[in-house]
Amino acid sequence: MATRKEVAALAGVSEATVSRVLNGVGPIKESTRKRVREAAEKLGYQLNAVAASFARGKSGNIGVVLPHVPKVHLFSTYYFSEMLSGIGEAARASGQGLLLLYRDPLKPFDYVSLFATQRVDACLVLGASAASHEAEAIARMAEEQLPFCVVDQRYDDPRISFVCADHAEGSISATKHLLGIGCRRVGFLNGPPHYSNSADRQEGYRLALKEAGLEPDASLQFEGNYSRSSGYKAAEAVDRQLDQLDGLVCANDRMAVGLIQGLKERGRRIPEELAIVGCDNSDIADWFDPSLTSVAVPFYEMGKLAAERLMESMKEEKASRGVIREVLRTSLVVRQTSR
Amino acid sequence: MATRKEVAALAGVSEATVSRVLNGVGPIKESTRKRVREAAEKLGYQLNAVAASFARGKSGNIGVVLPHVPKVHLFSTYYFSEMLSGIGEAARASGQGLLLLYRDPLKPFDYVSLFATQRVDACLVLGASAASHEAEAIARMAEEQLPFCVVDQRYDDPRISFVCADHAEGSISATKHLLGIGCRRVGFLNGPPHYSNSADRQEGYRLALKEAGLEPDASLQFEGNYSRSSGYKAAEAVDRQLDQLDGLVCANDRMAVGLIQGLKERGRRIPEELAIVGCDNSDIADWFDPSLTSVAVPFYEMGKLAAERLMESMKEEKASRGVIREVLRTSLVVRQTSR
Repeated sequence: MATRKEVAALAGVSEATVSRVLNGVGPIKESTRKRVREAAEKLGYQLNAVAASFARGKSGNIGVVLPHVPKVHLFSTYYFSEMLSGIGEAARASGQGLLLLYRDPLKPFDYVSLFATQRVDACLVLGASAASHEAEAIARMAEEQLPFCVVDQRYDDPRISFVCADHAEGSISATKHLLGIGCRRVGFLNGPPHYSNSADRQEGYRLALKEAGLEPDASLQFEGNYSRSSGYKAAEAVDRQLDQLDGLVCANDRMAVGLIQGLKERGRRIPEELAIVGCDNSDIADWFDPSLTSVAVPFYEMGKLAAERLMESMKEEKASRGVIREVLRTSLVVRQTSR
Repeated sequence: MATRKEVAALAGVSEATVSRVLNGVGPIKESTRKRVREAAEKLGYQLNAVAASFARGKSGNIGVVLPHVPKVHLFSTYYFSEMLSGIGEAARASGQGLLLLYRDPLKPFDYVSLFATQRVDACLVLGASAASHEAEAIARMAEEQLPFCVVDQRYDDPRISFVCADHAEGSISATKHLLGIGCRRVGFLNGPPHYSNSADRQEGYRLALKEAGLEPDASLQFEGNYSRSSGYKAAEAVDRQLDQLDGLVCANDRMAVGLIQGLKERGRRIPEELAIVGCDNSDIADWFDPSLTSVAVPFYEMGKLAAERLMESMKEEKASRGVIREVLRTSLVVRQTSR
């Protein structure tokens, strides 16, 4: 790779002049400009990608904005790792780079500046919540007609693009399955309600009970934060209600696994004393003992589809750019915890 | 965000002229240039980050180059997800973006162009092998004195920077532990030999046996590819040699878990019939039944340290930029499979 210094030597000018010519900055005599350009070409001094991006107005990168959660190894959670694998596959196939950026989930994030400063050509938002500052920050991209897509979070604002899964359907099938094997007192361990997927799961659970002529009982509903330790902690409250419960739907596998470990330590037998259904159908559902019945959610496919739809959308003119709205199906995988 | 159109309207010029002025392209009258700059400033038309990068010669991004393996959800493997979490934490703390890029592991990758085109300011290489084309491609960055660091792969070339773990130490402690609980016929299930971590683990196994006055027996050594299914497949060969074996070191947890599942299906009891030690100390080691004794490898810390050292190195002048060589310690976590 030739250096700026070599170009300067060959053209008989200073390095600063080489920069000014190649960066198009300041007044330069045409003869000097010509000499520098010829020297650069002769030495194979590479066309600067940043300069090329500048001319094209494109960075070649898709931004992926993730929440920063202290002490959580985000990539090591099945939820994010699968979505990122799908996004990565789509980006690789199209030759786009993936620019990972963190946001503080408690503060509004300035997505628009990422575009304004040309760091990204399009943006995917992962781990977003229904918090009003998040919705407003995302809506600003819609106002500017920028290409973006939220993954696994729905918003009522009709301008916000998203790809998500039918979590209500997942909860309906989990609850119906437990009723179908004879459970009559089905509880629910949900994640935080400020995610639309938590709210949708809750609604599915309610609908399935209602269809069976049952009323949801508030004392049989528990809340964690989608971590294994929160499931483990919930074991105490679940154990206290165990004479009132015969089945439990958990909003993800990590909480279900933590819960089962906590119940095992209290001498409870699963599924004999409590039938359990998880959600995600992650590796652990298959590996765990007892193996875990779980709602399979296509996170990899969600990430891949969101990235693909976004890249199509980037090619369109602002004015004709449609809103992306995709909801993927879930399915139930029955294993030992509900047999 | 003001648009180019608004700046053009206020300055009384065409949009193309606005672009030419702000991009420093082509000859422009000084009075026009001044009018456009004032209009842009008045409207808060954002300074283009690409233009700023161009002036600084910096993209603000660290490249992370990963192997593309068809059908493998790379981010979902403990190995890559933990390293990426560590890298992400260091990048976030310093305000750098992480640009993820894939390479074809069978072809030489042109790292130097990533710098020449200013897509990245520094580069981390993950999942590299000892294949000569990989070593040569990486060495080209050293030739150009570019800031880079390989994670978890050692090269003999003294110019190549790396951060890795002491996998030989890990294997020594795993093998000694099995000998210590009374095993006398210890086998080894390794990953592909073209990774230095596989070769180092093999060497540690050999050294520990030698110290105990034992010869490694080729018929007790098996090979997988670090996937769970390869461990599951190895169960057949291990089962055939089971009367010759009382302990087995596995080069990662995924293979160990697959192996145990395969042996269980053959009616074998673990650890009664075979004591097993895995490597990585991933989540599954703790969750699996029986829980898995495993060598804890600090992958998160490796990624974080590599990124931190790389960012320090970026600040140095080319000529004074030292080679990064860090080897992190491992430790053994004893659980049910070797009790």
